[in-house]
Amino acid sequence: MHLSALDAVPYFDRPSAPAEPGMPLAAVDTPALLLDLAAMEHNIAVVHGAVHDMNLALRPHAKAHKCVELALRQLQAGAVGICCQKVGEAEIFVRAGVPDVLITNQVVGAEKCRRVAQLALQARVAVCVDHPDHVRDIAEAARGQHVRVDVLIEVDIGQGRCGVANAAQALGLARAITAHGDNLTLRGVHAFSGRAQHLRQPRQREQDVAQASVLLNEIVGALHAAGHTCATVTGGGTGTYTLEGRSGIYTEVQPGSYVLMDADYAANELAPNQAPLRQALLGLCTVISARNGRAVLDGGLKTFAVDRGLPRVLRAGWQVTAVSDEHTVLQAETEAAARAAPLTVGDRVLLQPGHCDPTVNLHDWLVAFRDDVVEEIWPVDARGALR
Amino acid sequence: MHLSALDAVPYFDRPSAPAEPGMPLAAVDTPALLLDLAAMEHNIAVVHGAVHDMNLALRPHAKAHKCVELALRQLQAGAVGICCQKVGEAEIFVRAGVPDVLITNQVVGAEKCRRVAQLALQARVAVCVDHPDHVRDIAEAARGQHVRVDVLIEVDIGQGRCGVANAAQALGLARAITAHGDNLTLRGVHAFSGRAQHLRQPRQREQDVAQASVLLNEIVGALHAAGHTCATVTGGGTGTYTLEGRSGIYTEVQPGSYVLMDADYAANELAPNQAPLRQALLGLCTVISARNGRAVLDGGLKTFAVDRGLPRVLRAGWQVTAVSDEHTVLQAETEAAARAAPLTVGDRVLLQPGHCDPTVNLHDWLVAFRDDVVEEIWPVDARGALR
Repeated sequence: MHLSALDAVPYFDRPSAPAEPGMPLAAVDTPALLLDLAAMEHNIAVVHGAVHDMNLALRPHAKAHKCVELALRQLQAGAVGICCQKVGEAEIFVRAGVPDVLITNQVVGAEKCRRVAQLALQARVAVCVDHPDHVRDIAEAARGQHVRVDVLIEVDIGQGRCGVANAAQALGLARAITAHGDNLTLRGVHAFSGRAQHLRQPRQREQDVAQASVLLNEIVGALHAAGHTCATVTGGGTGTYTLEGRSGIYTEVQPGSYVLMDADYAANELAPNQAPLRQALLGLCTVISARNGRAVLDGGLKTFAVDRGLPRVLRAGWQVTAVSDEHTVLQAETEAAARAAPLTVGDRVLLQPGHCDPTVNLHDWLVAFRDDVVEEIWPVDARGALR
Repeated sequence: MHLSALDAVPYFDRPSAPAEPGMPLAAVDTPALLLDLAAMEHNIAVVHGAVHDMNLALRPHAKAHKCVELALRQLQAGAVGICCQKVGEAEIFVRAGVPDVLITNQVVGAEKCRRVAQLALQARVAVCVDHPDHVRDIAEAARGQHVRVDVLIEVDIGQGRCGVANAAQALGLARAITAHGDNLTLRGVHAFSGRAQHLRQPRQREQDVAQASVLLNEIVGALHAAGHTCATVTGGGTGTYTLEGRSGIYTEVQPGSYVLMDADYAANELAPNQAPLRQALLGLCTVISARNGRAVLDGGLKTFAVDRGLPRVLRAGWQVTAVSDEHTVLQAETEAAARAAPLTVGDRVLLQPGHCDPTVNLHDWLVAFRDDVVEEIWPVDARGALR
């Protein structure tokens, strides 16, 4: 289904970039999505260092940034590969030279499975399964391309979404996978809970990962007892990766947001031993209207995803009160604040997005800056790669 | 700032289309955004007919669909032009041959004003202002290109966003505009309230538009009394356009969502004389995991905007309970429902998006179908045109 749709030529392919290298931030066109390189480098140093110290593999989730340049920096900093969520994302990263991609999702349908098998000709590729039909379809596609594809059994550890619920279901899938031994390799188990990432208290997150680890130990024990290899147990995000790392059962963690950060993750209370991460992803907007302690910005729901709360404006005395299709409305907290730090037409403000993943997916470019100067412009290569 | 960013070549420009003309809907790759042509034609007939009967100008808002093919159909069906929200959108529609574009927004910054003036060389173009700085900047840009740009004074009729609040402020802007008589033409007044569109009861919407009309009559009266022309009073959306139409003060309405519709607009109670619109925009997803009366779909927050509520699944006995980055979770309403209309891996379902505008902006293609067959594939040309 990877069509060229020759009869439908868009008038427009990718919006032009809002800046060019060497430009001061003050000259960047708005709305724009900025990447603070120093903050990004800090976050990579903290997380990659912590994972290295725990003697684990790190496989960052590229669905958060969808950006080849960022993935390459993560690989340079020790990542063993990346995670993707969509076959279309994996295709882009493999084309860019990423040698090892785990699709942390069920791939459904003959055509998407064929594309996975095709990718396996060029890179180490794995997918997740939680139903015998997934195994049958990916095996058939791998056989068709004469390749081997790695498979992980997804376990539902509390998200209530995809994944098997118990050892009996996992064993059934393991048997189905090994029955296709010429084309499929059982790599292990995938177990991720998005819900757990955003439990606000460290103790809540600890309990959640501890409970998941009990189930995983049972399942991995059952797989081993039945003679299956289970080399990899992978999962864990920005909110919990240190807990999976110390669980004794996970061999690999897959945080994604850590490199960018957002207001939702920033609201997590950190454990005493956790190094804070810095906000690397920022929205830059211009005030287009201002009146009575109110300022209206030139970016709204097409600039910021609001599914986990409104963006936070980084301007003392002002707060975001509404985001509509095309505008974000700021209100001065007090009359004194409005006088002390007024906003008027043409002023520019920075905002911390509420949720990084769907916000990045709204943008075609990341403006990477250091010390208020644009250093590089990175395409969000896999923006819109839905399939 | 319209740069080519030659040093940053993306690995990928526009995702390939999920279908091709002639294909049955059952063969469309997912997730995909579908357009039911019969429903769209119904909606155009209803709304364009009603506006024609009220003897008003219709200027549909293209920010809802961002699609040249759709705009051309609206023009063929009697629209006098279109509205856009961004200069970048206007550039795309003008390039495609749309002869008349109103940017229903303040355009801020010398470079964006220059682009507006450039457009005025090729089409009839207007912008909104609510501050003397807007007038100064657009006049300077128009002078630089030796063109005339039309200007509308935006009035805040209750949204609490952009716009002047009273006749004195409007008169001040009218004087500023006419002082640049060689380059600016005062076309009239722009007055739109997004808030009013979604008041659920017809009576609430009536009261809101009636109240706005009082303020508008006062402002337009003051402009006329001071010798200013005010040929156009434009505003009104899908929720209220019949009310503006009968207000006696509006000369033009600008509904956008009517052509697509969404769950939020469908939740409005209609007045007795209002013809219902049909849901033309649909999400198509595949079940990738199913277990215990739960089904997980292959599209999440990057397929559906959820700022005005979750999408609604069009499958009896099932409802959407969660949308996360990459998944939508359906739950059977009862065990009997799950048995009567089960969902299993590979099944496909249609969904009604919660909010059409930001949902369309997530997609690169609209799959236009009729009678379960794909008829055309339309690019969402202005997807991501943020600036």
